[in-house]
Amino acid sequence: MSESEHETTAEPLKVALLGCGVVGSSVARMLVEHADDLTARVGRPLHLEGVAVRRPGRDRSDLPVDPSLFTTDAESLVERADIVIEVIGGIEPARSLIQAAMKHGASVVTANKALLAEDGPSLYAAAADAGVDLYYEAAVAGAIPILRPIRESLAGDEVRRVLGIVNGTTNYVLDKMDTTGQGFHEAVEQAQALGYAEADPTADVEGFDAAAKAAILASLAFHTRVSGDQVYREGITEVSAADVQAAREMDCVVKLLAICERTEALGEGGVGTPGVSVRVHPAMIPRSHPLGGVRDAYNAVFVEADAAGQLMFYGKGAGGDPTASAVLGDVVAVARHRVGGGRGPGESAYADLPVLDMGQALTRYHISLDVNDRPGVLAQVATAFAEHGVSIETVRQQLIETGEGEDAQKQARLVVVTHTAPDAALSATVEALTGLDSVHEVTSVMRVEGS
Amino acid sequence: MSESEHETTAEPLKVALLGCGVVGSSVARMLVEHADDLTARVGRPLHLEGVAVRRPGRDRSDLPVDPSLFTTDAESLVERADIVIEVIGGIEPARSLIQAAMKHGASVVTANKALLAEDGPSLYAAAADAGVDLYYEAAVAGAIPILRPIRESLAGDEVRRVLGIVNGTTNYVLDKMDTTGQGFHEAVEQAQALGYAEADPTADVEGFDAAAKAAILASLAFHTRVSGDQVYREGITEVSAADVQAAREMDCVVKLLAICERTEALGEGGVGTPGVSVRVHPAMIPRSHPLGGVRDAYNAVFVEADAAGQLMFYGKGAGGDPTASAVLGDVVAVARHRVGGGRGPGESAYADLPVLDMGQALTRYHISLDVNDRPGVLAQVATAFAEHGVSIETVRQQLIETGEGEDAQKQARLVVVTHTAPDAALSATVEALTGLDSVHEVTSVMRVEGS
Repeated sequence: MSESEHETTAEPLKVALLGCGVVGSSVARMLVEHADDLTARVGRPLHLEGVAVRRPGRDRSDLPVDPSLFTTDAESLVERADIVIEVIGGIEPARSLIQAAMKHGASVVTANKALLAEDGPSLYAAAADAGVDLYYEAAVAGAIPILRPIRESLAGDEVRRVLGIVNGTTNYVLDKMDTTGQGFHEAVEQAQALGYAEADPTADVEGFDAAAKAAILASLAFHTRVSGDQVYREGITEVSAADVQAAREMDCVVKLLAICERTEALGEGGVGTPGVSVRVHPAMIPRSHPLGGVRDAYNAVFVEADAAGQLMFYGKGAGGDPTASAVLGDVVAVARHRVGGGRGPGESAYADLPVLDMGQALTRYHISLDVNDRPGVLAQVATAFAEHGVSIETVRQQLIETGEGEDAQKQARLVVVTHTAPDAALSATVEALTGLDSVHEVTSVMRVEGS
Repeated sequence: MSESEHETTAEPLKVALLGCGVVGSSVARMLVEHADDLTARVGRPLHLEGVAVRRPGRDRSDLPVDPSLFTTDAESLVERADIVIEVIGGIEPARSLIQAAMKHGASVVTANKALLAEDGPSLYAAAADAGVDLYYEAAVAGAIPILRPIRESLAGDEVRRVLGIVNGTTNYVLDKMDTTGQGFHEAVEQAQALGYAEADPTADVEGFDAAAKAAILASLAFHTRVSGDQVYREGITEVSAADVQAAREMDCVVKLLAICERTEALGEGGVGTPGVSVRVHPAMIPRSHPLGGVRDAYNAVFVEADAAGQLMFYGKGAGGDPTASAVLGDVVAVARHRVGGGRGPGESAYADLPVLDMGQALTRYHISLDVNDRPGVLAQVATAFAEHGVSIETVRQQLIETGEGEDAQKQARLVVVTHTAPDAALSATVEALTGLDSVHEVTSVMRVEGS
C-alpha cells in the first residue's frame, strides 16, 4: 500500500484516445470511472489528455468526459501523449496516427485487426525502432484474452493448431440455421434486425474479418509473418440448410472456423518441409467438441499445443464494453512498462515458415451425392476417390425416391466422409465425381474439422 | 532475424531446476529439446545449470540431460542461477530455497500452490525487495493460462466472480458419479485404479488443493491478500448418488467449485460494505452452463467481469507436460525481463478488502426433504423458510410410498430451490427443517451456482 501511495504522487501518464464510437465511448467511460483502480494498478495516474473525433459538436453528454477534451486535431493530440489508444478502425488515418505516435515515443494500444493484418510487420518494426509497445489484444476475439496467452503463456511450448470461432455475426447466423432450420438469407435478416449483422454484412459473412484475425493469430502462434491476403478464405454465403442438416445427421454443427496449423508440405519424393496453413472456411465439427457448444454471437478459440494439450478460451468477441476491457488491459500493461522500465515482448518472426497454399492444407471432406440406384455405382464412386489418393473413412448409402408417377425414379444418396488428404486432392475428387454418369448431383460438400 | 541472431551470441542465462518428478522431468526435457526455439524467443540461450534431486543415483537415462547435472546440493545450485524453477512441492525445503534464490538475485518460477496459499505475501514481498520476478502460472489449473489473463488482460476491468473447476481428481469422480450413477467410494476407487486419484486422496477430495488455488485466484482477482486458511472448504466426500440424481432432475450437474466473489457484507442497518467471499464446495450448476460440460479430469475457470462479461478458460489441470508448458511460459517471461530490463507486474493488494465469513456468502440452496403427506405440511415448511428471511424460488412436491403391508405410509418429497440468501440463513433454515415434526428426513442439501 505504501509503495503505491508513494508512486501515485508521480506525474500522470497522458493518454490520447483516437475515436469515440461504440468502443471508444466505453474506453473513455472506464478510464474516468475506474481512475483510482487504474492508478493503483499502474503505479501512476492515467490522465485522459484528449479524445480525437470527427464530429466535435455531437452530443456526448452521457460520457463523464470534459467536453473541452474532444478535438478534431488528432495529429497534435498524439504528439502530447505517452499512450495512444487507437479505436478508429480502418487503414487511414489510423496507420499514420499510430506511426506518428510511436515516432514521438508513445506506446500504442489498438483494436485494429484490418490494419494489423495488412501492415502489421512494418508497424511492429516501427515500435521496436522507437522502443515502445504496440499492443492489440482487442483486435482478435474482443474481450477474450487470447493473444497474450499465445504470445506469453505458451512461449515455452509449441502451438500445433489454432481453431477459432472469431466472428460473432457468422456464429449467430450459423447457430440460428442449426437451431431453426432457417436458410442463410433468412438467418442473416434476423441477425440484422437484432443488430448482430450490419446492413452490409460482407466483411463478416464473406470471412474477411475472420481472415484478418487468422493472420494475426497465425503470426503469433508460429513466429512467422502472415498477412491477411495470405489467408485462404471462404465465407458462409454458400452454406445451405441442406449442409446444416447433413451436419446434424453426423452429430456435427457447421461453424465458420479460422484455422492456423503447423503442418508439412509434401515436396518432391514425399519429403515434408514444415510450413503453416492459414485458412477461414465453414466446417463441420462434432457437437461434442468444445467449439461445438459455442452459441449465439459468442467467440471461442481452441488451441492445441505439444505439451499443454487442448486449451479453449471463450467469451464475447465484440461490443463496446467487452472490447474496451481488452483495450484497457493493454493500456495498464504498456503503462506499467513505462513506469517500471522495459518493453513487453515484441513480435517475433524468427521461425519464418512458408505459408502453404490451400491445396496443400490437410483436411477431410464430407460429401453428399445423389446417384443412380444400380449395381456398380459405389465401385465407380470409390474408384474416383482412389484415383486421387483419397482414402474413405465412412460411406453411408440410403435410398430416396424422386419424381412421381411415370417419372418416379429410384435413387440412392451416398454420404462419404474421407480421411485426411491434401485439399487439392479432395477438391479434384469432387470435380471428378460431378463428371460421373451415375452421379446426379453433388448436394453438399463441406470440410470436417476437430476430430 | 538479425536482431535475435545478434542477441543470442550473448551470455546464456543459467537455469536451476529444483525437483525432477513428473513435472520436473517434463521441464528438463523441454528445456533441452526446445533449446533453439527458447533462445530465439528469449533473445539469449537458457543453460540448464543443474537439477536438484533427492536421489542422485536414480536411473534418469530417459532424460536428455547430462548425468553430471544432477545434484543433491540444491543450496549451492540456486546461488549460481539466474532463474530458479521450483517443482519440488510442499512447504520445505521449497520455501527456503526460493527465498535463498531471490536473495541471490535470481527470478523464480514455481508451481507450488500450497506454499503460495500459505505464505504468498512474504514471498511476493521478498521478490519485490530483491527486484526479481516470482511467477507461478502452473500453480493453478495446470496448463490453462488463467493467472496471467486475470493479472494482466483483465487489469483494466473489474472482476466480479471467478468459478473454477480447478481439481481434476474430484471432477473425474463427480463426472463418473453423474454418468454411471456410481456412489462416491466406487468412483474414487475407479479414479485410483486409473491414476486420476492418489492412494490417499484426502488433499483432493476434501478440497484442500482447490482451496489453495482459490486463495491464489482471489488474491489476484480482487487485489487483496487471501490465504488458504481463509477459504471456506467443503469436500465431495458427502456427495451421494442421491445428490447427483437430484441434480440430474434439475438438469444440473454437481461440480466441486472454487468460488471467488466480490460481494457486500450486510452490516448494521443493512448497509453493505464491500468484501470478498472465497469458498470451495460442491454445487449444482446447470448443464447448459459453460462449466457444466467440463468432463473427466479437465479443469476450467469461468470469470465474470464488469466490462468483459463472461469468459471461460478450459484445458488440462495437471500432468507432467501440461504443467511444464505453464512453467516454461513463465520461464520465457522472466528470462525476457532479464534480457530487456524491468520486472513483470508483481502482486498488488491495494484493494485490501475484508474476507467475509461463509455465513455472509450469498448463495442458493437446493433442499430435498421427505415429509408426511398431510394438509398443512407445506405451510409449515414454507414458514420455516420465511422465518429465516429465505425466499423460495420453486417448490416441487411428489408422492412417494414407504414401507410395506401394515407399515405402508404415504409420504411426500418436497424439493425446494431458494432465491439467493446469506449462507448462514440458509443453513439455519435447514437446521429448523430437521426439527419439524412433519419432516422425516432432509435427504439432500446442495448449493446452486451459475444461474
